[in-house]
Amino acid sequence: MQTGGYGWTSRLFTDGEIAKQFSDAAMFARFASFEKALIHALAEAGLIEPADAERLVGQIAGFEPDPEAIATAVVRDGLPVPDYVRQLRAHVSGPGSSLLHHGATSQDLIDTATVQALARISAILGDRLDDLLALLDSLAARDGSNPLMAITRMQPALGFSTQDRLAAWRRPLETLRDQLPALRHRSGLLQFGGAIGTLQALGDRRESVARSLAKQLNLHWPGHSWHSARDPITAHATWMGDLSGALGKIGQDVALMALRGPQDIRLSDAGASSAMPHKQNPVTAERLVTLARYNATLVSGMHHAQIHEMERSGAAWMLEWMILPQMCETTGASLAAARALFKSIDRMGEPS
Amino acid sequence: MQTGGYGWTSRLFTDGEIAKQFSDAAMFARFASFEKALIHALAEAGLIEPADAERLVGQIAGFEPDPEAIATAVVRDGLPVPDYVRQLRAHVSGPGSSLLHHGATSQDLIDTATVQALARISAILGDRLDDLLALLDSLAARDGSNPLMAITRMQPALGFSTQDRLAAWRRPLETLRDQLPALRHRSGLLQFGGAIGTLQALGDRRESVARSLAKQLNLHWPGHSWHSARDPITAHATWMGDLSGALGKIGQDVALMALRGPQDIRLSDAGASSAMPHKQNPVTAERLVTLARYNATLVSGMHHAQIHEMERSGAAWMLEWMILPQMCETTGASLAAARALFKSIDRMGEPS
Amino acid sequence: MQTGGYGWTSRLFTDGEIAKQFSDAAMFARFASFEKALIHALAEAGLIEPADAERLVGQIAGFEPDPEAIATAVVRDGLPVPDYVRQLRAHVSGPGSSLLHHGATSQDLIDTATVQALARISAILGDRLDDLLALLDSLAARDGSNPLMAITRMQPALGFSTQDRLAAWRRPLETLRDQLPALRHRSGLLQFGGAIGTLQALGDRRESVARSLAKQLNLHWPGHSWHSARDPITAHATWMGDLSGALGKIGQDVALMALRGPQDIRLSDAGASSAMPHKQNPVTAERLVTLARYNATLVSGMHHAQIHEMERSGAAWMLEWMILPQMCETTGASLAAARALFKSIDRMGEPS
Amino acid sequence: MQTGGYGWTSRLFTDGEIAKQFSDAAMFARFASFEKALIHALAEAGLIEPADAERLVGQIAGFEPDPEAIATAVVRDGLPVPDYVRQLRAHVSGPGSSLLHHGATSQDLIDTATVQALARISAILGDRLDDLLALLDSLAARDGSNPLMAITRMQPALGFSTQDRLAAWRRPLETLRDQLPALRHRSGLLQFGGAIGTLQALGDRRESVARSLAKQLNLHWPGHSWHSARDPITAHATWMGDLSGALGKIGQDVALMALRGPQDIRLSDAGASSAMPHKQNPVTAERLVTLARYNATLVSGMHHAQIHEMERSGAAWMLEWMILPQMCETTGASLAAARALFKSIDRMGEPS
Repeated sequence: MQTGGYGWTSRLFTDGEIAKQFSDAAMFARFASFEKALIHALAEAGLIEPADAERLVGQIAGFEPDPEAIATAVVRDGLPVPDYVRQLRAHVSGPGSSLLHHGATSQDLIDTATVQALARISAILGDRLDDLLALLDSLAARDGSNPLMAITRMQPALGFSTQDRLAAWRRPLETLRDQLPALRHRSGLLQFGGAIGTLQALGDRRESVARSLAKQLNLHWPGHSWHSARDPITAHATWMGDLSGALGKIGQDVALMALRGPQDIRLSDAGASSAMPHKQNPVTAERLVTLARYNATLVSGMHHAQIHEMERSGAAWMLEWMILPQMCETTGASLAAARALFKSIDRMGEPS
Repeated sequence: MQTGGYGWTSRLFTDGEIAKQFSDAAMFARFASFEKALIHALAEAGLIEPADAERLVGQIAGFEPDPEAIATAVVRDGLPVPDYVRQLRAHVSGPGSSLLHHGATSQDLIDTATVQALARISAILGDRLDDLLALLDSLAARDGSNPLMAITRMQPALGFSTQDRLAAWRRPLETLRDQLPALRHRSGLLQFGGAIGTLQALGDRRESVARSLAKQLNLHWPGHSWHSARDPITAHATWMGDLSGALGKIGQDVALMALRGPQDIRLSDAGASSAMPHKQNPVTAERLVTLARYNATLVSGMHHAQIHEMERSGAAWMLEWMILPQMCETTGASLAAARALFKSIDRMGEPS
Repeated sequence: MQTGGYGWTSRLFTDGEIAKQFSDAAMFARFASFEKALIHALAEAGLIEPADAERLVGQIAGFEPDPEAIATAVVRDGLPVPDYVRQLRAHVSGPGSSLLHHGATSQDLIDTATVQALARISAILGDRLDDLLALLDSLAARDGSNPLMAITRMQPALGFSTQDRLAAWRRPLETLRDQLPALRHRSGLLQFGGAIGTLQALGDRRESVARSLAKQLNLHWPGHSWHSARDPITAHATWMGDLSGALGKIGQDVALMALRGPQDIRLSDAGASSAMPHKQNPVTAERLVTLARYNATLVSGMHHAQIHEMERSGAAWMLEWMILPQMCETTGASLAAARALFKSIDRMGEPS
Repeated sequence: MQTGGYGWTSRLFTDGEIAKQFSDAAMFARFASFEKALIHALAEAGLIEPADAERLVGQIAGFEPDPEAIATAVVRDGLPVPDYVRQLRAHVSGPGSSLLHHGATSQDLIDTATVQALARISAILGDRLDDLLALLDSLAARDGSNPLMAITRMQPALGFSTQDRLAAWRRPLETLRDQLPALRHRSGLLQFGGAIGTLQALGDRRESVARSLAKQLNLHWPGHSWHSARDPITAHATWMGDLSGALGKIGQDVALMALRGPQDIRLSDAGASSAMPHKQNPVTAERLVTLARYNATLVSGMHHAQIHEMERSGAAWMLEWMILPQMCETTGASLAAARALFKSIDRMGEPS
């Protein structure tokens, strides 16, 4: 959700690069891609003349929606597409223009744009993950052989080397990176079902139109709509919850190491205290724990949002809208914080 | 948290009047009140000359913090107060200026400003609640005698009157309104503990300084700090969860009544569909369910945030920061949506 | 819910004394009290002859329900009362017996029995809380003056005394104890609404019957039923979540103190390791954290369960049934674990 | 967790076949398999004489642990393995017996036994899922062509056929079934790390011992321990949350269809009401919603449990213990309830 929060936290919990993917600009551009591809697909199916299709696509390309009018209409309609389409209809003209949006429904545009946003976001997160893995390798190369005390159940156990702990941090991150291709495959699906999920308005052209649409949008057509089956969306939420969780575990460890003292870790750029200038608080490590627990809290709502009513649930679907972008930003912020934390580690373990 | 979300949802889930209470402007103004009151209190305790105190308070009154510099510093420090105080120290001068912020710690300012924000927010929410109760009375006066089918466990049970259902909607709202004075009493507490919660820097003046500070800020001094005991904050979260929950139940009912048809309810201004112009979707009713489930999800995180480490936990405290403002806005949005929904009810029950 | 779990955890997370309050024996005894009191109330209202009422009450007193038959019927009916009443009807006879259960519905019996169980449970929890407060006083008397390092944001801050930390542990527990009378007042309510919450079957005797029933059951009659307004139940869930949360914070602290070493705390009876016999794991302290996070997770479900559909929701109500007894047992186990932990503290702080 | 709950709910929310997998009998048998396989593996590595290994394995095979003594020891140790191993050591004798449990730690036994339990449970759930899919096919064959009103956002939309809704129910279940092989692959991992996760006690035999152990237990050896990386466990929790969520959506739909009336659905064996004999409540459909929301609540705790401290966290691990068996039983109960519900559908849609 789009909300204020404490003003000063603007750089703690958010992620501008991720947030941009859910902006009106980005989402409405994806709506336009969908509507253009649909015109082409209808033309391929023989429902629109090729020349008319070209003209319509050109008109759509020149369309600039009025986001303010849409935001207002959303309060009445519950979603942005009716007013978006109304504006777009007013913008296009000529033969074939009555077939704009033909066969599609609001959810087709929004869900498709959302999986496209998730594809882009998971690519960003994946890049940052690669970066983190490289940073961990550098830490291992520099400090890996330093002796360190292993801790189990909040008690010193036996000595091992810094490399051992770094490897335990690295492995779940590597697992998560390796899950990315399957995740993208699972979620790279065109949403296309029309009013009640059956593409009934397209008659026997439904399959060919859907296939063409998917191909143009670089998505997979699963053979049916998935209006009330949210797996492609929740799979990302789970993966992001796992990722911020793995980073939260690292943050927890660094905070505990900072508590144990410099034989475990030395951090530069640690946080200042207004009352105790001598302290160096592991604030970024703490923040990783916060972000992990926040996503762990939110993921529950994504599971509740699976309980759609009938062919389309506004209540469950809007719950996704409130949560998903936040989980994305939280995970993005978590990766950025982990990077900053790793870069601030002056030394792990005792100098050997 | 401050986040983007889907651009088009800007008027669905948020609440500008509530959000403002957590803005830098509002919070920093409360910080200034605290620092001014502390100077006065130190003067009363004989630690600052009265004339110096007057001068310092005047200087603080003219202070304009640089929020951008603070937002940047927060990434390093984990909280805004160290840089706020650094800027303020640079702004004041003269005898007594070294006692600025004396005895206080960051958490004292932030928690105190937060309970002040919550007092203001609960007043706003209380006013809206009164308004809703009046709207329910109007509905009862107009439609109360209309016959309606009672529904239990998703089955028509027996006939009763519209007034019976309206009364069931009203009662929890009334209970919540009646809980407000106790809630404000419970949370109207000065936070004041200094570095480690014991006000040790103030020696035997701690009680008198605390009492003076509380009195000036129109808060109660409980006799001790509550850095790691979050009852005053979580009590509001629970109350707001209960409130949006009670409104979510009403939303659920209206959506079900809309499903059952016009013998149960007639709504004006219901939502348009991009594919089915004949439909009138109860989108505001659905939104009440969404907002309720969102708060029900978040409240869990507020309970996790009770598990502070030692004298002050950054991880648990920041989790509050991510959640509390959102629960406030969600509850505000829920009350606004309920008002819009009640106003859109053209008729409940069958015309008698 | 009644479930298996890992067999070996039977004494870690559960609480026999609490569990007993939700047993068939305890709940069916409360059903019988309700039905007896209702007979008396109907007699007072002139609907049953006094002598018939005496006979019926005697018959009910001798009734032994068949729990196995009820458990089977619950799968079909979704609740135990229809079969319980069927059995009871078969057991009673003579004039007035047709008025058994007259005016009441299943939810009246179950909710009333539940608030009675909660009254008993909160008394048990309150007694244990008193006991904990006394143990904390003993610890303070013994170790209060021992020097201890205060820790803020996972960093040693300044020295203070053990008493200071003990006081921070004690205060939220004291607050929770002081909230008990208000909690009991808030939840000590008769549930009585009949089929659709309006007591319509009782006509103009509804008020007098309800008042008599409440008086006999030592409950308050709020003037209406609260079938879909769950405040009396959720108030307990919140209070218990706050209590296990306060104890979880103590557990977290003790685990961190054990990590820091014997200058902070010495525990006897700490946990053995199968691989490292030299370790003394603070397992009971860890368990307090676990129990707190478990309740923090569950409390979310209690908030979702506020979203009842219409006059009675099976889905939301059953969610309460799954969660409430567990929150009670978890809180009970948490108090028992805290007691064991306090008793195992050989010393806090450094010997002075 | 093992808890009482309302006695009468014993057949609503639990699942005996699933529960059995977490019983002491089942888990201790898996511990014995582990210890036997470890003896063999140590023999293969040349650390125990083959004949001694045979004798030891025979002795272990005849071992019957005392579960009561273990349950008592768990309170002290925080886990069952130390006392289990103590009992087992007292049971075995002769050359090589000092190498019993050599190189292993408690978590190795418990986590390995848990993934073995999950393998068995997912097989049971998978079989039930196949059964459900067949039932859906039967419903489609019988009622698929019956006309039905599609409902979007709680409003009648357009007519379609019963087959369309059944297909929407079926697809996510099919997806979940198809995910099972990958899920089993992801979680079929030997846990083996010894005291601090590095198998340091086994020196350069660690790889060969681990590979032999895995092979004997029919698990995969990932090349390292995963004490603090919980993906193999949480992956099951997520899958089960998705499954009960998909069934909860079906339950929600059936409850709404029952509300709309016999033109949508006719159910036999619906629930009786104690106050309104004419009603036929869709109690099993409601229960599916309850079970889904319960798992959606619990899954949050599994995400919090990912935040392990250092090499092994008692607090986070025990949170898994409280939640995982319940999610398994809830999912099992959900599949059983769905089967009962499907079998009780006399007709969907209007007779054509």
